[in-house]
Amino acid sequence: MQKTFFDDTYLLDSPLAVDLYRRYAKDLPIFDYHCHLSPRDIAEDRVYTNIGQLWLECDHYKWRMMRACGLPERLVTGDASWHDKFVAFAGIMPRIIGSPVYAWAHLELKTYFGIVTPMNAASAEAIWQQANAQMANGAFSARQLILRSNVEALCTTDDPADSLAFHQALAADDSFHVRVLPSFRPDMVVAGLTKPGFAAYLQRLSTAAAMPVATFADLLAAVESRLAFFVKTGCVVSDISLAAFSPVTGTRQQAEAAFAAAVAGRPVDAAADAAYQDFMLRWLAGLYRQYGLVMQLHLSAIRNNNTRRFAALGPDCGNDSVGPAVSTAAFGRFLDAVEQEGGLPKTIVYTLNEPQYYELATMIGNFWGDVPGKLQLGAAWWFCDHVDGIRHQLATAAATGALGTFNGMLTDSRSFTSYPRHDFFRRILCSFIAGYVERGEYDPDPAGLQQLIADICVNNARVFFKGE
Amino acid sequence: MQKTFFDDTYLLDSPLAVDLYRRYAKDLPIFDYHCHLSPRDIAEDRVYTNIGQLWLECDHYKWRMMRACGLPERLVTGDASWHDKFVAFAGIMPRIIGSPVYAWAHLELKTYFGIVTPMNAASAEAIWQQANAQMANGAFSARQLILRSNVEALCTTDDPADSLAFHQALAADDSFHVRVLPSFRPDMVVAGLTKPGFAAYLQRLSTAAAMPVATFADLLAAVESRLAFFVKTGCVVSDISLAAFSPVTGTRQQAEAAFAAAVAGRPVDAAADAAYQDFMLRWLAGLYRQYGLVMQLHLSAIRNNNTRRFAALGPDCGNDSVGPAVSTAAFGRFLDAVEQEGGLPKTIVYTLNEPQYYELATMIGNFWGDVPGKLQLGAAWWFCDHVDGIRHQLATAAATGALGTFNGMLTDSRSFTSYPRHDFFRRILCSFIAGYVERGEYDPDPAGLQQLIADICVNNARVFFKGE
Amino acid sequence: MQKTFFDDTYLLDSPLAVDLYRRYAKDLPIFDYHCHLSPRDIAEDRVYTNIGQLWLECDHYKWRMMRACGLPERLVTGDASWHDKFVAFAGIMPRIIGSPVYAWAHLELKTYFGIVTPMNAASAEAIWQQANAQMANGAFSARQLILRSNVEALCTTDDPADSLAFHQALAADDSFHVRVLPSFRPDMVVAGLTKPGFAAYLQRLSTAAAMPVATFADLLAAVESRLAFFVKTGCVVSDISLAAFSPVTGTRQQAEAAFAAAVAGRPVDAAADAAYQDFMLRWLAGLYRQYGLVMQLHLSAIRNNNTRRFAALGPDCGNDSVGPAVSTAAFGRFLDAVEQEGGLPKTIVYTLNEPQYYELATMIGNFWGDVPGKLQLGAAWWFCDHVDGIRHQLATAAATGALGTFNGMLTDSRSFTSYPRHDFFRRILCSFIAGYVERGEYDPDPAGLQQLIADICVNNARVFFKGE
Repeated sequence: MQKTFFDDTYLLDSPLAVDLYRRYAKDLPIFDYHCHLSPRDIAEDRVYTNIGQLWLECDHYKWRMMRACGLPERLVTGDASWHDKFVAFAGIMPRIIGSPVYAWAHLELKTYFGIVTPMNAASAEAIWQQANAQMANGAFSARQLILRSNVEALCTTDDPADSLAFHQALAADDSFHVRVLPSFRPDMVVAGLTKPGFAAYLQRLSTAAAMPVATFADLLAAVESRLAFFVKTGCVVSDISLAAFSPVTGTRQQAEAAFAAAVAGRPVDAAADAAYQDFMLRWLAGLYRQYGLVMQLHLSAIRNNNTRRFAALGPDCGNDSVGPAVSTAAFGRFLDAVEQEGGLPKTIVYTLNEPQYYELATMIGNFWGDVPGKLQLGAAWWFCDHVDGIRHQLATAAATGALGTFNGMLTDSRSFTSYPRHDFFRRILCSFIAGYVERGEYDPDPAGLQQLIADICVNNARVFFKGE
Repeated sequence: MQKTFFDDTYLLDSPLAVDLYRRYAKDLPIFDYHCHLSPRDIAEDRVYTNIGQLWLECDHYKWRMMRACGLPERLVTGDASWHDKFVAFAGIMPRIIGSPVYAWAHLELKTYFGIVTPMNAASAEAIWQQANAQMANGAFSARQLILRSNVEALCTTDDPADSLAFHQALAADDSFHVRVLPSFRPDMVVAGLTKPGFAAYLQRLSTAAAMPVATFADLLAAVESRLAFFVKTGCVVSDISLAAFSPVTGTRQQAEAAFAAAVAGRPVDAAADAAYQDFMLRWLAGLYRQYGLVMQLHLSAIRNNNTRRFAALGPDCGNDSVGPAVSTAAFGRFLDAVEQEGGLPKTIVYTLNEPQYYELATMIGNFWGDVPGKLQLGAAWWFCDHVDGIRHQLATAAATGALGTFNGMLTDSRSFTSYPRHDFFRRILCSFIAGYVERGEYDPDPAGLQQLIADICVNNARVFFKGE
Repeated sequence: MQKTFFDDTYLLDSPLAVDLYRRYAKDLPIFDYHCHLSPRDIAEDRVYTNIGQLWLECDHYKWRMMRACGLPERLVTGDASWHDKFVAFAGIMPRIIGSPVYAWAHLELKTYFGIVTPMNAASAEAIWQQANAQMANGAFSARQLILRSNVEALCTTDDPADSLAFHQALAADDSFHVRVLPSFRPDMVVAGLTKPGFAAYLQRLSTAAAMPVATFADLLAAVESRLAFFVKTGCVVSDISLAAFSPVTGTRQQAEAAFAAAVAGRPVDAAADAAYQDFMLRWLAGLYRQYGLVMQLHLSAIRNNNTRRFAALGPDCGNDSVGPAVSTAAFGRFLDAVEQEGGLPKTIVYTLNEPQYYELATMIGNFWGDVPGKLQLGAAWWFCDHVDGIRHQLATAAATGALGTFNGMLTDSRSFTSYPRHDFFRRILCSFIAGYVERGEYDPDPAGLQQLIADICVNNARVFFKGE
């Protein structure tokens, strides 16, 4: 029997799935433990007044689909009006069947505007009008969208050198009770040594930490000082993007020498940089364990691949893609070294390279114990964040570990209307779980099912990111 | 409910799929933009008179399955009679459940002979008799088979040194209106430098281009001259098989030096050859853009692996297999360099290495814009060209790009009865698309579905391979 | 319609699947051609008296799941009582939905104890009581469990230096007619050169072969002597675990030099070791061909990754995981060299690295001929041995070769209650085959289906491991 377009059973593929979703998943709050929202926009409660800007101002997922359909850059990131960009975007919909952008756009249209109409060139104008009419009264502000989405906490992504002023302002603001927490993301600290902006970065770090950062000991002291400040300001999780793990362990002496060379403007070769990065990563992992922070590792993104486009638009503009697998041996060596040097922190490993799921998911399993799901295969990320991709991550996590300990979904998004991705995930999860029950492969007890679903949707994240 | 063996709903897994296929896909003509048919056989309208020869003369897919079942080489490529080979082939059918060879053979039996009988040792003799009776009157000629298959155009695979005499003869033949177009495949130009036959090849090229090919400038001039001639003779697409992309960019100076060394009989090391190949590939890509040709890249085939068998039978005899993934960074570097040097031509990337789909499909997405589906993940190829493989390619293309811009199926075949592979694909495609509609995940509007299906089955290819 | 928990249609997803399983698969005997059972336990008919010890004494699959759920090592491999360990294990069940451990544990509970109750913290105590009550009378002995499981033959895993005394005792024991055959596993012979225990190993080998092993010629003579003895004692299959294939062919001279260096205590570098290993592997492959043994190659396991845990518990304690893909070119070079040097033995290639299935399955296809399924993609192994993993292996084998020649399932287990994995496999197989018939893609003839299923479940293995 054919379903109605985006009806309430969307992605729910059995009666039990519908039931589980409605009873146990739908109304749970969201703990969005990884996103790229602007704390400033939340603090200042930025208001959006047209759907074109709301959707297309900074969403590289949508931009890529527009380019895939042959649209000129003027309609993507160029100087066309928001109206024209929106109409162009709606017009590509018929050709992007099966894309997560198709799914998310229609989910967002339904969730925030109550519009359940297939987008295309013919319907674009009416949707533009109806949507904007609803946005005219200021209801589409950052905070309103967060509140309407039933978010209880969200973790932004922040550099150690950031002041966290907006986080402090939000914590002090009694009119808004959603917890907006910083995440500690020291990419420049770990991977900046050979980048042009490193000296300027150290200056920023020095200012933030209110201490000189001249020596390697200074660097470590400043970073730890910032980490302590982040924790005081509510931080529960760190993050880093990595292209590779060093095949060999870097010593403190090597790291110190590489840092000194970089600061002095002397060349740092690849081996010295790798040793520095490995030492810094291990040292940070030890700090995370001490401070009770979760360590997030994001692997196999390959960035800024189109030089022409990068020159025109800069980073994060749809110019990144899935990189090759990392060395499993090097990844294992890193985990093993940290485990031997005092023990691993709670860890989540994300990869864009889906075929490597098995290698990563089974390698982290060598370090399990004492904390439920202490090391986890992260939720389907970025290019993998579609129906098949989410199912693949769930199936891999279930086949190789304890799915019931999984922290569930995150948005990883820059958009205030991206929360339906949690709904998207929950529907897929309920179908996934219902499948086992319907096939007679899992205990049908309702209380157990409620527990399992609530754990994955929100309980596990609450415990994992706050408790010890 | 169990379906009847190879009935009309074959591969159509829902009522809507059946409907979409019957209304919108079944009767569309075929634009077969990549095959290995012999232009001579078409020009001379070769006639086949027994199904053994028709099927087993040069089909390495079938040969591999016969060997998998333990048949001696005498019954595969040896001196057994066509009768004995056919009976042996029919006899292995029960053991190759799930093989594309099982599917294709039964589809061909149904399509061209109207026989819908499971092949096996017991049915072989009767099928041999019935099929051959139909072939006795000359109806199984190259042209008749092409016409019966509703082919409007096909692109053969041709070396730059080929004369294209048969293509010219076909173009001038008013009695046959199917367009038989050459494809430009300069494998020897790009990858021949260190091969024994390179000097002889340059001689052939020189003859074809009617100019000396002594210097590197000669080589470029001769190749461009042949390309222009190919284009004049109807060529719309190039092709090349690549084992790897060079990690570094090769300069014209390096390419020239390597060519000079090869011509002079001096050794060319791997680095010099890689630089030469990279320069040539980039230079050709620029030519393709200028001449409006599509660039096809075929990756990750590993050839002639069994030395004994290669010595006995030569190339293309079922002795090739799936090679490792190429370097994504090197592939990206190549695309980026061409983009910077004037812009990429329309490009299709095929790989045998399915697990690399994600890396390739997202890397090409960094270069999208201006032309719908300007760079595409090619159709499931060779070893991947079965039901699951085709679904995997469709799902990957849909999840990472705009499936509606996809050029659809090709046969990649040496056989005049391989056109049911388009029917095979269309059935899978209709089921794939129907699935989204039935699950309420895509606009059910019939006009839109008709457009989408016709675009992927034939419209996109018509535009992509002819228009700008 | 929701199925009952672990009812008789478990994993059978259509009426035809149920029918095929009941008629043709269910009651077939088991030829378990690869396991790690203790021949001593069988010879001495070891008796188990509690389900905790039976299940948790040496099952690293279960241990990993317990650690994944955060249990302390005391309850996993530590000094907690069997009762407490069993209760802890039952308690994690609700969180390991989708894990093969969930499936196997409930299958074993049903098969050997007749208990069909979802395990969890609440049901644990009653199951412990009921199970142990059944075990009190000695019915859970090694031989009783093997006989109840309908095993006709099993192949243990044995070092060339082993005496095979227990195999001899079993062969001479008229009271037990199940064939318990040794497998020849020369990992230390091939990969031991640079390991600390190599000298001691040569001593053991010398004792077993009753000859000195001082020179390389001695080594080869001793190994062949042991191989001949294994064959005389019923051995039909060899095995080896490999991390990589050498990119280049090792000569006898290189192997001899490396061996001499190792024996003399001089260092053996990686290249010399690779040459030695390649020569030994090729030499052994030639022996296997001569003696009619099957060659099993187990690829892409990465072992002992957690140094802390390895120091505490030693090998095979849940500290291993999926390694990277091997070099396809090197694998092909190895096969090609053996083929040229006299011909390949019958060969099965297993890998943990599922994404490499296609590369391996198509590479072995280059060497097919003369024997049905002469080279095979081995059954889903270890971490891949769950529902999706088994389906993936079946689908790959079917798409790339002749599934009807496949040798089917093995347990690869240390447990006397692991035989339900054959039942698990047969159910998945019957669903897989029924799917083709129900979709009209395969001959529905019952006699053919019976043959196909019996072949894969047991007939092929009987022929492959005994005949020529």
